Amino acid sequence: MRKCKFCGKETGIFLREHRLALCEDCYPGWIEKQVDRTIKKFNMLNKDDRLLVAVSGGKDSLSLWQILKKLGYNVSGLYIDLGIKHNNYSELSKEKVINFSKKIDSSFYIISLKDEGLDSIDRISKIYRKTCSACGAIKRYYMNKISVKEGFNVIATGHNMDDEVTTLFGNLIQWDESYLDRQFPVMPSGDGFAKKVKPLVFISEKQSAMYALTTGIDYIMDECPYSKHATSISYKENLNMLESKHPGILRFFLNNFFNSKSKKGLQIEGSKLEIKECKICGAPTYLDICKVCKIKENINR
Amino acid sequence: MRKCKFCGKETGIFLREHRLALCEDCYPGWIEKQVDRTIKKFNMLNKDDRLLVAVSGGKDSLSLWQILKKLGYNVSGLYIDLGIKHNNYSELSKEKVINFSKKIDSSFYIISLKDEGLDSIDRISKIYRKTCSACGAIKRYYMNKISVKEGFNVIATGHNMDDEVTTLFGNLIQWDESYLDRQFPVMPSGDGFAKKVKPLVFISEKQSAMYALTTGIDYIMDECPYSKHATSISYKENLNMLESKHPGILRFFLNNFFNSKSKKGLQIEGSKLEIKECKICGAPTYLDICKVCKIKENINR
Repeated sequence: MRKCKFCGKETGIFLREHRLALCEDCYPGWIEKQVDRTIKKFNMLNKDDRLLVAVSGGKDSLSLWQILKKLGYNVSGLYIDLGIKHNNYSELSKEKVINFSKKIDSSFYIISLKDEGLDSIDRISKIYRKTCSACGAIKRYYMNKISVKEGFNVIATGHNMDDEVTTLFGNLIQWDESYLDRQFPVMPSGDGFAKKVKPLVFISEKQSAMYALTTGIDYIMDECPYSKHATSISYKENLNMLESKHPGILRFFLNNFFNSKSKKGLQIEGSKLEIKECKICGAPTYLDICKVCKIKENINR
Repeated sequence: MRKCKFCGKETGIFLREHRLALCEDCYPGWIEKQVDRTIKKFNMLNKDDRLLVAVSGGKDSLSLWQILKKLGYNVSGLYIDLGIKHNNYSELSKEKVINFSKKIDSSFYIISLKDEGLDSIDRISKIYRKTCSACGAIKRYYMNKISVKEGFNVIATGHNMDDEVTTLFGNLIQWDESYLDRQFPVMPSGDGFAKKVKPLVFISEKQSAMYALTTGIDYIMDECPYSKHATSISYKENLNMLESKHPGILRFFLNNFFNSKSKKGLQIEGSKLEIKECKICGAPTYLDICKVCKIKENINR
């Protein structure tokens, strides 16, 4: 058995990509330090920021919530109840969030699609073939709305490294330059949109799950039932196989991509399109009527 | 059994990525047409060009030689004898090239590393850890040298789609912008370098092997012994698995990448570095002494 690099205790936790053995007691602190480094490297946060963390009840977002709290940031959660009935997904994930907020003694907000006139993702999935895309638009809309309403100046999301590399790979396959230009762990505020950060961008899915396990986070293990057949899952499997053959390659890939942008001093912009106010709800949008109001219209038609 | 789209004959040849069944009689003509399209799409060749095809004795380069001849181009071969003794690799591949040139009635040139004071790749592999990189430099040097000396204005190489996507993927992992900027199926002539084209850039490795089989090309089946453990082989395997799950994705990926360059009207340049004459041999180079003269020095030291 290997020995923990920090305390010498025998351990089964070994991070191949870092050639690092850590025991379950030393592991959480190491992860927190990695996240702290990412936050500083990309100038993500200051201690006087008011942070809203989008939490789904899964390992990544709950871990992020806890890490930010431990690192001393002023942070609240936002849970969006999507009304997904399969395996009682939304009900269970809400419970996990409520219990976890008590455990770490952090306040949180709940938005329910039902209360907002959006019914549920179950209903929306029957109208929108690209359910994940519609769901993403809704989540971004309410993250932004709550942050403006409640005075949060930064939104943090729990996207992990595997998510981020998969998105990068998908954008490269399509060679979508508008997405490639905008893929960065920090998006500055502007035009009515809050600043957005992804502090777990260099924490792999495995590392995140291990963090949740070693710190006793009770998270929902089910994946969202709508994401199961997504192309991104297939890309992720493929990239995981690459990683298993070349430990560290995904981190290297993502880091090179971000560094090339940083080196260029590239100004990461939200979009080059003109920003307008939605004619129905007044939210910032690139269209006349924002996507969420459009979805509401289609649901209630 | 499926039926050939063109003649209705039963066939086992099915191109999943094109959802196309073709019999062994109709298949070669279809491939030749694809190559013709690529040549035209990228303005690779004119009928009054004098073409030099780099031939290794493998399926891709012999297929390319034959296809270019069939399409009516003025083409000669160039074989570079690398002096690789393992499995009698160089001797056998030279024989294949000589026999094939007779079969298709096309002239060719032979350059031998031994005669050029470069001994062999076997020898060079003992001095240069990055053997493939040194070998590539040598091949490019003699392709260029012979084209200038013998009055060829275009050099064609048999890089297939799998090669090209693998290179692209490797360049993306590294995010090497100077390589990404220069990866294109046509490189214009300039500064003493001949124009270079890759007409098989949208023909997959499987398609190329099938072309060689259906037209009775006798090629060397062994891979170069030095390429076996290359990282690129591992990338290629990974990309092949992706293709098997999403037929057509590699073509889509490569095509999107090239199209984004074409759309930008990007001027593909050899390099932004200043070109000089090698102080020893006079060949065009970005260094004071070209790589090949440097290798010669190191061998004879």
